[in-house]
Formats: sequence, structure tokens, C-alpha cells
Amino acid sequence: MLRTAIIGAAGYTGAEVVRIVHRHPELELSHVAARDNAGKRLGDVVRSTLGVAGVGDLVLQSFEPGEAQALAGRVDVAFLCLPHAASARAGAELHRAGVRVVDLSADFRLKSREVYERTYGGTHPAPELLTTAVYGLPELHREELSGAMLIAAPGCYPTSAILPLAPLLRAGLIERGSIIIDSKSGVSGAGRTPGPAYHLPEAAEGIRPYKVAGTHRHLPEIEQELSRAAGAAVEVVFTPHLTPMTRGILSTAYARLLPGKTEDDCRAAARDLYRAGLVSVLDAGVLPDTLWVRGSARAHVGYAVDARRGTVIAMGAIDNLARGASAQAIQALNVALGWPDALGLPEIALFP
Amino acid sequence: MLRTAIIGAAGYTGAEVVRIVHRHPELELSHVAARDNAGKRLGDVVRSTLGVAGVGDLVLQSFEPGEAQALAGRVDVAFLCLPHAASARAGAELHRAGVRVVDLSADFRLKSREVYERTYGGTHPAPELLTTAVYGLPELHREELSGAMLIAAPGCYPTSAILPLAPLLRAGLIERGSIIIDSKSGVSGAGRTPGPAYHLPEAAEGIRPYKVAGTHRHLPEIEQELSRAAGAAVEVVFTPHLTPMTRGILSTAYARLLPGKTEDDCRAAARDLYRAGLVSVLDAGVLPDTLWVRGSARAHVGYAVDARRGTVIAMGAIDNLARGASAQAIQALNVALGWPDALGLPEIALFP
Amino acid sequence: MLRTAIIGAAGYTGAEVVRIVHRHPELELSHVAARDNAGKRLGDVVRSTLGVAGVGDLVLQSFEPGEAQALAGRVDVAFLCLPHAASARAGAELHRAGVRVVDLSADFRLKSREVYERTYGGTHPAPELLTTAVYGLPELHREELSGAMLIAAPGCYPTSAILPLAPLLRAGLIERGSIIIDSKSGVSGAGRTPGPAYHLPEAAEGIRPYKVAGTHRHLPEIEQELSRAAGAAVEVVFTPHLTPMTRGILSTAYARLLPGKTEDDCRAAARDLYRAGLVSVLDAGVLPDTLWVRGSARAHVGYAVDARRGTVIAMGAIDNLARGASAQAIQALNVALGWPDALGLPEIALFP
Amino acid sequence: MLRTAIIGAAGYTGAEVVRIVHRHPELELSHVAARDNAGKRLGDVVRSTLGVAGVGDLVLQSFEPGEAQALAGRVDVAFLCLPHAASARAGAELHRAGVRVVDLSADFRLKSREVYERTYGGTHPAPELLTTAVYGLPELHREELSGAMLIAAPGCYPTSAILPLAPLLRAGLIERGSIIIDSKSGVSGAGRTPGPAYHLPEAAEGIRPYKVAGTHRHLPEIEQELSRAAGAAVEVVFTPHLTPMTRGILSTAYARLLPGKTEDDCRAAARDLYRAGLVSVLDAGVLPDTLWVRGSARAHVGYAVDARRGTVIAMGAIDNLARGASAQAIQALNVALGWPDALGLPEIALFP
Repeated sequence: MLRTAIIGAAGYTGAEVVRIVHRHPELELSHVAARDNAGKRLGDVVRSTLGVAGVGDLVLQSFEPGEAQALAGRVDVAFLCLPHAASARAGAELHRAGVRVVDLSADFRLKSREVYERTYGGTHPAPELLTTAVYGLPELHREELSGAMLIAAPGCYPTSAILPLAPLLRAGLIERGSIIIDSKSGVSGAGRTPGPAYHLPEAAEGIRPYKVAGTHRHLPEIEQELSRAAGAAVEVVFTPHLTPMTRGILSTAYARLLPGKTEDDCRAAARDLYRAGLVSVLDAGVLPDTLWVRGSARAHVGYAVDARRGTVIAMGAIDNLARGASAQAIQALNVALGWPDALGLPEIALFP
Repeated sequence: MLRTAIIGAAGYTGAEVVRIVHRHPELELSHVAARDNAGKRLGDVVRSTLGVAGVGDLVLQSFEPGEAQALAGRVDVAFLCLPHAASARAGAELHRAGVRVVDLSADFRLKSREVYERTYGGTHPAPELLTTAVYGLPELHREELSGAMLIAAPGCYPTSAILPLAPLLRAGLIERGSIIIDSKSGVSGAGRTPGPAYHLPEAAEGIRPYKVAGTHRHLPEIEQELSRAAGAAVEVVFTPHLTPMTRGILSTAYARLLPGKTEDDCRAAARDLYRAGLVSVLDAGVLPDTLWVRGSARAHVGYAVDARRGTVIAMGAIDNLARGASAQAIQALNVALGWPDALGLPEIALFP
Repeated sequence: MLRTAIIGAAGYTGAEVVRIVHRHPELELSHVAARDNAGKRLGDVVRSTLGVAGVGDLVLQSFEPGEAQALAGRVDVAFLCLPHAASARAGAELHRAGVRVVDLSADFRLKSREVYERTYGGTHPAPELLTTAVYGLPELHREELSGAMLIAAPGCYPTSAILPLAPLLRAGLIERGSIIIDSKSGVSGAGRTPGPAYHLPEAAEGIRPYKVAGTHRHLPEIEQELSRAAGAAVEVVFTPHLTPMTRGILSTAYARLLPGKTEDDCRAAARDLYRAGLVSVLDAGVLPDTLWVRGSARAHVGYAVDARRGTVIAMGAIDNLARGASAQAIQALNVALGWPDALGLPEIALFP
Repeated sequence: MLRTAIIGAAGYTGAEVVRIVHRHPELELSHVAARDNAGKRLGDVVRSTLGVAGVGDLVLQSFEPGEAQALAGRVDVAFLCLPHAASARAGAELHRAGVRVVDLSADFRLKSREVYERTYGGTHPAPELLTTAVYGLPELHREELSGAMLIAAPGCYPTSAILPLAPLLRAGLIERGSIIIDSKSGVSGAGRTPGPAYHLPEAAEGIRPYKVAGTHRHLPEIEQELSRAAGAAVEVVFTPHLTPMTRGILSTAYARLLPGKTEDDCRAAARDLYRAGLVSVLDAGVLPDTLWVRGSARAHVGYAVDARRGTVIAMGAIDNLARGASAQAIQALNVALGWPDALGLPEIALFP
């Protein structure tokens, strides 16, 4: 059993790591931290853990600079569910102290320091680790993940878009310059801090685009990974939408098929790429739906072709907090440690 | 006061016509019909009318072939909220009997009988009226509507997509062959008949594409109107999504800008086209949201440009049952009769 | 046309007054104020008004102490949608300046200064007006309202509970000491300020009691009005619940029937009391549902009797922002001015 | 590993058993049946299982009279998720064939054949087993469950109401004749068959009572168990409400405290009764909320006292499909087999 710490356990991705680790046969919840709630019991701020032995009564700690060494003596692996920059600082300290780190922030996802700093502002706290960190999308980075000590868990929008598109780019089925990604995310993607856009009366019956036309921070991450898959630079149009539901992301992506390529080619490429891992490639005529992946580590991808316009519609559905964050983070850890992808993970969605 | 009949008053668009007509200063609710509920009071099947004088106690009639002449003596205008084909039959009879007809079905929207029959199946019951009927989108067909005796109220998806795109095509700002329309509709768009996809437990937390890749019946209608706006044939990629909310459609459309054209050009074209009517063109940086049009006759349109990819994102938000059906039907009638567009219409959305 | 001011126009009840006044044939929107948004256009903060002539472009003013006299020269009636205490101060000033005031806060609802101060804390800013103010529930205070210059619009929970219970108490059908009120409110009742309990991800799938066991501020208001109806002191058990929807309150009240009294007696008492006004008394076997009153000025009440236990279940459904606040405020004004109750009001709910 | 059959696997409780069994360390999914979908793969009708090894590809069987013996050779335990009457027939056959049966229908819950037949109509297919069957609420029937071969999993409303009230009746804290139960259920409680009341546009923003005043079928079950707890006949007023959410039941129960009894007494009685099992008794001031139990086998109960009226408000929150059906069914099986209550169960809710 690996002793496990969750730093930032009171937010949504932190609470989701708690939920999953609790049932993981090889991980043991040893330490939870949440700065603003330090001193409270986990059950006071995440009441779903009330009464659960060994979980709800854990007292939330703070995690301050300089404490990594002490923590290293007590835990084997740490999940970081912190804001960007703070995450890189904590991650760098823990990494140096020998703790295996899975970072759920954006800090170690981008390979280019310049792109990171342009996207997130400020100076990267630990740029020397950008090449050390492995992008934790197991189906695409399985070998790199083996033994990894610093894993950057992918973002939610990127996961939902990369999974359906990567096979097409790797197999050379679509025009690199034609990709448009229209994504719809549940409100939990915005995190646990309330705000006007997430206030139920103004969110429950409104769907809305935001940060359109190249301004969302997940765009460089999507392009980095699609470029790797294509073996050449890819620039996409990306439109996120806030959708009136709690969990889930559906990405509907459009691209021009290269001459002679077919819908079956798309599906075959995906089936080939996803023989291992936790991606279900749907049969012809079956379309992804966030309903079917809620709470699950699995992603669903599907394809359709508009023959008149020579356009493939590549669709991916995930749970933004599970496959798009915490469950994928643990899947990546599983792969890093040589365990089966699905070990300890919820594979079957909560339905309905 | 025009004596008004609503045929098919127990469905969603029928009930919405009831709601609006009740407050219209020049329309008087005289006759309601609903075949499956004939003999019941309107208040029994649309309980929002219970206790409302002159509405809730109206007894639902049936409307059978051959009754148009009799009805013509008692009403001046009839709104048809019937399934396709049935609507054309009733509409043709009433039209011949001299009743002004506003048809909310698809039967008189398409100008081509061949396209209609390919799209909806069967034989069109009254093809001779296809040229008589006026497509009731007032901002685009104002002159034709003047005095019209047979109005085809536009479909919900088409309204949401045509409104943001038509100005760009008319002004020659975008490539005709590049349009992709990604639409998100609330569940009421599917009508009042229950079904597995609309069952709350399976619809409330799932967003899903359906009838993708050129298979949705609203596609020919969208293309007809965009082609008219462009003055040349337009073929679009259209993906409808069922979205977990009751009312509203957001259409996010993508098109390549022609060289030298800008976001400001798009907005200016829309402002120019929509000087009259009920379309609000949002300022730069403000994006449409179905929240703000619920229950309203107004549409919101907005624009953003992704400069790297030379792509405009043209967005339209409407209430599918109001601006996308019943309120627009009455707006078209208002225009036909020379009244102000907004006469008797709810212009301010129910918020929140 | 009465020139109308709305002080506090950016919140939910203020925006709802805007929506209704816009279509009221005798009220003209002349002045809007909202302290935190002063200087912005109404359309910037309530986007449902964007593009609506004479509404969306109104510039929000501040309303500071001492400005009542100046405002009195420009408006005839003012709706106050302010926090308590602030509302009493503004209301007292405007009242003295001769402006007809409809206060949507709790400040003038309670007849007892002591009860007010115990319930809301602090010192009442204008206790001398507590007897002047008329409790604006038209069906119960029609005569007092006639000509009223200071109207206290009732609270949302009180409206939903008083309407089904008052007829039973007035007719002497139930034991005064046996009343239990279990109320379920949509989230908009909490206002427009975001908070953890109203954050969509934590509110959309949770129903929860709060402020139970006599701690909710609406309790004294309910008891005051039920005591008036009974002609003797009434103490109730009142449990509010936050319910995962935007609008609506359903109150399910329980009371022991007095010997020999029946369900039909309850319905008859309600029908008798509500011959005038905007309350629909449902037939036997039909039960209230917030679905049917959304956005409407109407309330629905219904009754059932559990014969084994001699208990009546008295149920009321309203829209908390319409009948429970802004629409009822205007209904009360209508009555004060001798107009029909329903003048300018939305009587038919938005359905669905 | 026990070989496990699920008869009726395509409905909500069946699918929930699938989800839980898949992760149970001692249960192995061996057989799934669903009459109307026989021949399809489970993944075709419950798409959350698509791609999950050993689950999604299972072919749904039919289960016809006379097949129990054959099935007995292949499975050790069967969960029945069938309509009432059909469930008793299948359960009796399987029981006779030696299969351990956990029945999720109402057929074996009531001890009185007469009450069953009056409540559910028709003739009970296997009345001789009514005394054999054990009511599967582990915290109240732990000893009886030991070794049980026929378990009647409790209903959802009963579970939510019995858990907070039973301790009070056992400890003699409340008046037996004063109990009122106001329950709010998510829509999934109505099952997977669509209907007008569950159609999202008419369910998502409406809360409504139904089957009030002693007409709901769960009432006799509630009274049977509360009477056992009290040691004397208990009659309750019970009002179910359909609530706009997918999962969860909150029951808010009211009862008069006996003289001298306090809120602390209530909590202490509950803590005493629930030392073992999966019920979290909330601290003073903390109130149950369905949010915190979604997807979980745990129930939350809490108490408050209205001192003026001498009334205790006893509240219980559960997930209707998990603790209120499938998870509790497996908890009961765990207890029957001498395993820990929580073995293989989701104890931490999906949050948010």
C-alpha cells in the first residue's frame, strides 16, 4: 500500500481523488491538506465522507513551503490539487524530496516555458522540471509514464478533444489546419468557488460560449498534444461552452477528411490506438453522451462523416472531474507503477 | 380584435401561442382545438391557464377535414401547431376558406416540393401553396410578409442559425462553403411527447449530439435561407445537440472570413440588417446566452474572430418555443398586418 | 401613465418588476437605481433588456439619502427592492416626499416593532410607519389597500403558506395549534449574490432543509397573517427547504381538521375567499405544482384530507419572484389604485 | 466469489446492482436478464458498461417460468429487479431451487398477505414465503439477516423515513400518533419508463406532491417497520413529492416529543442504534442534504427540535437507487453472509 497525500483536498478534484483513492486496493489515504480549511475535519468540508472510517475524520493540514521533506517521510505519493504556480512550487519541493508527484494543475503540462508563461502569466516556478514531467494521458504516453516520478495530469477540455482527434492525426486521416473544436462543459469544471456565472438561477437554464477565439488557457495544451500526434504543428479553433449540468464534457470536433478517407478509417484508427487503456470507441451510429460517463474513468469517442462536405465529426465524452482530472491522474499513476490502467478506478458510470 | 384559433393547442408551441395571444391587444382567443384532448377544458391539459378568465375554461375542439368553412365564419386567423402533413392539409383548407393561416409546422417552409418530400417523406398535401406561403422570418422577409395570408413560421434551429449568419452572407464577408453550425437545444424542442431521451433522469445531466452529418430535417431549411441570403447555393455542416435544459437554442457557427474582413464588419452587417425587428446585436466581447432570451421574442446574436485561423464565430441565442416558434409566428403576423413587430409580444425574457 | 421608479433594479425582484412594468398599460418605467452598478446601463447587468427600447439603455442611478425630494418630482410610484433596513430608510424618505411606495423588503410587513427588531436585528429605521403600511396580499387586505401610499409586499414563503391556510383558519376548519408547514423553494429565493449553497454543482442535485425549528425570518410574518385570519394567536412549525430549481415555492401544510369538517369544506372556504383576486383553487384530486405558475401572478392552492389521521394537507404553489414578490407587489398597487388585480400582469405561466 | 445473476438488469435498480457488483470483491457478475431486451448486449441498453470487460458484452437473457432450476446450477445469488408479482413468482422459484435471492421489488416486504393484496392488488404469488423473507434493512434486522436465503430489499421512501424515525420510537421519545412524513424524491424513483410527469421540460422546474393522504404504496411498509420499532401500531401521514433532480430522497418527518425529551436524546438514540452499519448521524446544527449521499450506500440522518411547539424534525437523506435500493440490497447480502456491511459498496458519494 502506498501512503498517499492529497494537497488541496477540499476542492472538486481533490474530493474526487479522495473518493477514488478510498477504494483503490494499493493506495492508502494518509494525509490531506487544504490551506483555507486547515484544522477542520475533511468531513466538515466534504460531507460525503462523514462517517466513513479513516476518511471523514482526517484533519486537514496546511502545506507550507519547506514542509516537503517532513512529508516525504510519511507519504509515498502526493496528488496536487492546487492553483497553478502554487502547484509547481509544491510539486518541485516534493519531487526533490523524493515523493512521487501527480500534479492536477496546468503547471507541468506544457513543454514550453515560454508558452506556459504567456498563457498563465508570471514566471514558471520550476521550469527545469518541464522536461522531467510526463503528460499523464496514458493511451498516448504509456511508455514515458513507466516509472515516472512527476506526472502532469491532463486538463479536462484537452482530454475530451485529444482523445477523439489524436487517432485521426496519427493515422493521417484529416487536414491539420482544418480542426474546429466545439466543447461543452458542465459547471463543476469551474471549480468550487461560487461566482455569478455558476449561480444556479443563472446557470441552470443557460448555455453560453466563453473565452472564445483562442483565449482559453487549455488551447496551447490541446495544440501541443495534437501537434505531437500529427508530427507537425496543429492550430485549432476552440470554443468552450458552459453547459447547464454538473459534470461532463462533450467535445464535438470538425475536420476535413483527406481524400479517400472514410468514417470507418476513423473508427479503425481509434480502435487501434485504444486497444489498451480506458477509451470506448463507439460503433457506427452510436454517439457519445456525457450521461454515460458520469463519475467514470472511461472516455467515449465516436465518429460520423458528412459526405457532402467531406467533414468528419469526431466526438468525445468524458466526466470532467473523473476522466478529465482525478481518475485519469490515478490511471496515469497506475501505469507509472506498472499496474493495470483500471486498478481501483470506477469504470462504470453512475447511471442515471 | 382578430378572432384567433389555435389548432393543436395542447402541445408546447400551441400552449405558447395561447400564452402570448392572451396578452396581445389585437388578438382574441376564440377557438382552441387539440384532437387527442377534444372535449377537455384547456385548463385540464395546460394547467397554467387554470382560473384565467376566457382561457382555462375553453373547451378543446377537434378539427376534422371539412370543417374549415364552418370555422372560417368564426375566426379571422388560425395558428396551426400540428404534425407535418396534417398541418398542410388543415392549412390548405383554411387558406381556401379565407382564414389567415400561420403554420408552425415545416409544411410550408421549403420552397421546393422535391426537397420537402425527400426530407419529410410522403407526398406534400398542398404543393401548389409552397410559392404562396411566406417564410415568416420578419427581419429577412419583411416585404413579402406584408399582407400575407399564409405564413410559414420558421423552425427553431434554422432561426438560431440564420439570424447570426445571414448578415455575413448578404454582406459577402465569409466563404459560402466553409460554414459549420454547432447547435445546442433545450429538450422542449422535442415536443411534449415523452421518450427515453427526454426522461429527466437520462436527460438532466447529459449533453449529446444527434442526427449528425446531414440527417436532421432542419438542414434543408437552413440551407434554403442561407442560400437566399448569399444569392448562391450554400451547404452547411449542421450538428444538433440535446442540451440539459428546458428552453433555448444556442447556435455556434464557424466560417472562414474572406480576406480583409473583420469582426467589426460582421457586427456592422448585423446591425445594419437588424435595424428593424427583434434581434439584439451584442457589443464586442459580449456573447449570447440562452439565459437572457427565455420566454422572449428577441434573439441575441454576437460575433468573435479567431485571427490565427481567419475564422469568425457567429453565435445566436433564442428561446426555441418563443422566438424559435410561437412568438416569431405572431411577430410575422404582426408584420403581415402592418403592426409593429413587438406588438403584444414578450420582449423581456423571464430572468432568472 | 404613472411614472415608475425601481430602486434596486439589478437584483432578481427588481429585474422582475422591470419585466412586468414594461408591459403594464398604466405604468411607465422612468427611473432605475442600483447602487453597486450605478452608471452602467440596465442592459449591461440585466441582459434580458438589451435592445428593448426604453429599458435596456436606461442608466442605473444611485439612490442616496436626501434624494427622495428630487425624485418625487419625477416619479409617482417607487418599487423598493433593497436589503432590509436600507429599504425602510429609503421608503420613509420617499413616503414623506409624497411618492407612493411599494416595498419588497421585509421592513414594513410586521406590525410589531419588537418582533421586527428581534427578527431582523438592529433598530427599525421608521417604526412610526409600521401602522401606516398595508400588507400587500390583495386577497386578504383588499379594503386596506384601497388608496394605500405605503405597501409592504409580502414575502415569498409567507405567500405560499398563507394562501392555502388562511381560508381554513377564517372558516374555523382546523386546530390552530396543529399547523406544520413544509416549504420547498427554488434557489432564486436566495437572491442574486452567489454562495456555496447556490453554486450549481452543489445545488442542482441536492434538496436540503435549512433554518429549521423556528429560525427562519419569514416565520413571524407567517404567524402574524395566520393569526389575523384565525382571530387568535397561531404558532406554526415551519421548515424551508432549498430545492434544485430556479423559481417556485411549494408549501405543503398539515393541520388537524376540527370534528365534522371535510376536504370539501376546505375547498369551499378557499373558493369563497378567492372569488376575487388571482388564486386558482384546484379541483379535488388535482394538486399544486410549481411548474404551472412559473412567471405568473397566479397562485394555485389545493387540498386533500387523510381521513385516518384527521389531517388536512393544504398545498400552495407560487412563483417566488412573481406571485411571491414582484407580480404581487404590482397586483397590490393595482388594487390600491382601483385597477383590476390582473392589470398588466402575466397571468399565464411560462410553460414549459 | 459468488456467481451472481441480475434479473431485470436494464432498469435503474438493475443497472445500479451491475455498477456495484462489478467492484465487489466477492461477487462475480455471471448472468444478466432483461425480458424486453433479451438478446441485446448489456452495453447496448446500459451504455455506461460499454467497453468494460466482462460486463458490457454480456448478452441479456430472458428469464421464463421453469428456468430457475437450470439457473441454480450456474449462479449462487440472484438479484431481482422486476415489477411486483413477477418478482414474487421468480423469487419463489429461485428460492426453491436453492438460489439465494435478494428481491428489490415490494413482494416480500410486507408481512401481512392481506395488506399486500390490498396495497398491490391481485393475489400474492407466494404468500408462504412472507414469513421466510427477511426485511433487508441491516441496521434494524441484523440478526434475522444472518444466513438469510430470501431478502426483501426495502423501498426507497421507507428507508429514508424509517432510518431517522426508528431510533426515536425504539427509545420512546415521541408520540406514536403524531408522525407526519414529508418526503421529496428525485425522478429516478419512478423508474426508467418515460411518462409525462418525468418528461424533462415538465419535471425540471416543478416540485409537486402526488399520491397524498394515504394513497402511496410505500405507506404500509413504513408503518409496518415503524410499528415494529415502536412495539405498537403506528399510523403516519405520508406525502411524497416529485422533486426536480435525478437521484436522492429527503424525508422531513415531524413528531411531538414526549415530555422531557430533547434534541440530544434523539441524536443519542440514533447514535446508539447506528453504531454498526452505514448510517451517519449528523452533529447538532448539521442537516441532511441529498447532495452528500448521491451514489452512496450511506444514509445521513439529523435532528432539530422546535421547542415552542415541542416538535422534533427528524430528517433522513439517501440516494434512492443506492441506499434506497441496490446498495442496501447488497449491504443486506453482505450481512447475510457474515461480511462487513460496507464490503464492495460505494461509501463516499459522487461529489459534486
